[in-house]
Amino acid sequence: MTDITAGEIPVFDSIAAFREWRKEMIRQNKTVGFVPTMGALHEGHLGLVQTAKQECDVVAVSIFVNPAQFAPHEDLDQYPRTFDTDYASLVASKACSAILLPKVSEMYPVGITLDRSQQRGTFVEVQGLSHQMEGIPRPHFFRGVATVVTKLFNIVQPDRAYFGQKDAQQCVVLRAMIRDLLLPIRMRSIPTRREADGLAMSSRNRYLTPEMRNVATLLYRAITAAKEAIIERGVSDREEILAPAYKIIDEVSQEVKAQGLPFDIRLDYLSLVDVETLSELTTLGKSQAAILSGAIYVGTTRLIDNVLINTNEL
Amino acid sequence: MTDITAGEIPVFDSIAAFREWRKEMIRQNKTVGFVPTMGALHEGHLGLVQTAKQECDVVAVSIFVNPAQFAPHEDLDQYPRTFDTDYASLVASKACSAILLPKVSEMYPVGITLDRSQQRGTFVEVQGLSHQMEGIPRPHFFRGVATVVTKLFNIVQPDRAYFGQKDAQQCVVLRAMIRDLLLPIRMRSIPTRREADGLAMSSRNRYLTPEMRNVATLLYRAITAAKEAIIERGVSDREEILAPAYKIIDEVSQEVKAQGLPFDIRLDYLSLVDVETLSELTTLGKSQAAILSGAIYVGTTRLIDNVLINTNEL
Repeated sequence: MTDITAGEIPVFDSIAAFREWRKEMIRQNKTVGFVPTMGALHEGHLGLVQTAKQECDVVAVSIFVNPAQFAPHEDLDQYPRTFDTDYASLVASKACSAILLPKVSEMYPVGITLDRSQQRGTFVEVQGLSHQMEGIPRPHFFRGVATVVTKLFNIVQPDRAYFGQKDAQQCVVLRAMIRDLLLPIRMRSIPTRREADGLAMSSRNRYLTPEMRNVATLLYRAITAAKEAIIERGVSDREEILAPAYKIIDEVSQEVKAQGLPFDIRLDYLSLVDVETLSELTTLGKSQAAILSGAIYVGTTRLIDNVLINTNEL
Repeated sequence: MTDITAGEIPVFDSIAAFREWRKEMIRQNKTVGFVPTMGALHEGHLGLVQTAKQECDVVAVSIFVNPAQFAPHEDLDQYPRTFDTDYASLVASKACSAILLPKVSEMYPVGITLDRSQQRGTFVEVQGLSHQMEGIPRPHFFRGVATVVTKLFNIVQPDRAYFGQKDAQQCVVLRAMIRDLLLPIRMRSIPTRREADGLAMSSRNRYLTPEMRNVATLLYRAITAAKEAIIERGVSDREEILAPAYKIIDEVSQEVKAQGLPFDIRLDYLSLVDVETLSELTTLGKSQAAILSGAIYVGTTRLIDNVLINTNEL
């Protein structure tokens, strides 16, 4: 086991060694908060770590780019791996007590291929919540997330686990998973951190060129306009709610074209769902808790965002 | 929390109350063995409890007839529920420290229907090991088993878990699940207990009439004859190995018919698989560890059994 030296954080790339650290926390009667990440840490992640530190005695952060949640055509190989800066950020945060950096071979003992039809081993699926919204373009995604989070929970055995609300559906899926599998873990979802202009912080933002970055706020502006239709104008009809969002996305796409910028804006979807069932709503009930979300491509980079309606919790 | 009175065993029908018992065991620094059952306890189960008690400080037994592992046409409603005699057997065993008797509504918080297409909630599937052998006639079965055992493990958090080798494929599936999900649990598989005439003990044996019980050993005699072909005659070809087994089953079926008994014997399958991959073997390698198994119907009662080749462990 790595020693905990002042100002430094032990990094465990072996599950067995991490378990020893965890046992020591039990001996010391310390509550453990857990922030699972895929690295490429930004202020959003560090905010989760800070909140965890406020609520728990010690905080463990995992960094693991999970193959099972990528499809063969997606960006697994390209996904940013920035351990040195991640480590420096966590040290600077003064809120992280241990880093779990597991190997793919330990996390997937029988291996993991991205070709779902060839996958072997144990998988966790949350039925009823995994195949709408983000689950339509990414039918494999939430099975991969639920599986890796189950494994990480079994290693870390946290008292509380922290997730960002930017991944709204992930929060709903994992809260259901914790409940269904009777995991003795308190799920905490934390509001999305945004840049000054409203862009949701995301590890994938670094794929954006400056020109792309300039227009990337369009999704947030679109869903915010839709939320205003609900909150300020009392609109309840789905099409009326989403109309201003579609309008903004359409206008910005046209502008990008008109300016001859070397990329396209393409809307993947806009969605308005009930916060519990994740079923699409044709009419929003008075004070019904809902998620207004969407995904767009800016060039080849896919960005997601959401705003919550009549709730702060996921 | 129920008091532990001398000679009595606390019975927890609330998960929260069981968790308090479990926490007390942690405080007392006691290792916990776990025997999950569906009740209708027989000597096979009690043997698991005894072995667990030899290897752990305390033993928890769960009794839960798991709906998710039954198909709509199977015997969920008819499955024997005999809590009073189960409780008496566990008290008499002097080896059980706690009984978990959870409610379906707590185990499946969003409910559970036997119609798989309508099921919602979180499920665990062990791919590659769940859809051969018992998984052919019962395609839903191991998903139901893996799901409920994951839930039970999350409640009981045992150091060691005990399963009977009569359910050979279940042992292989659950050992893979524990490994894949990185559960900090030691899996123990215990040899099948048999009646004096060789019949594997099973809760479903009580469905048999005396006339059925008389012939029910045919499956064990069949797979034992096949095993003898391997061990005593060095046979390696699948068809040659299984030939004496088919012969016995055919002969007994004919006898039952000739005697005009009021039931039929029907072979479901015979199987010879590698112990790790559970793939059917056309040739058994020299000293290759394998499972020789089968399922038969005696009347409407389905019985399974197996013998191990070149191994004692599952």
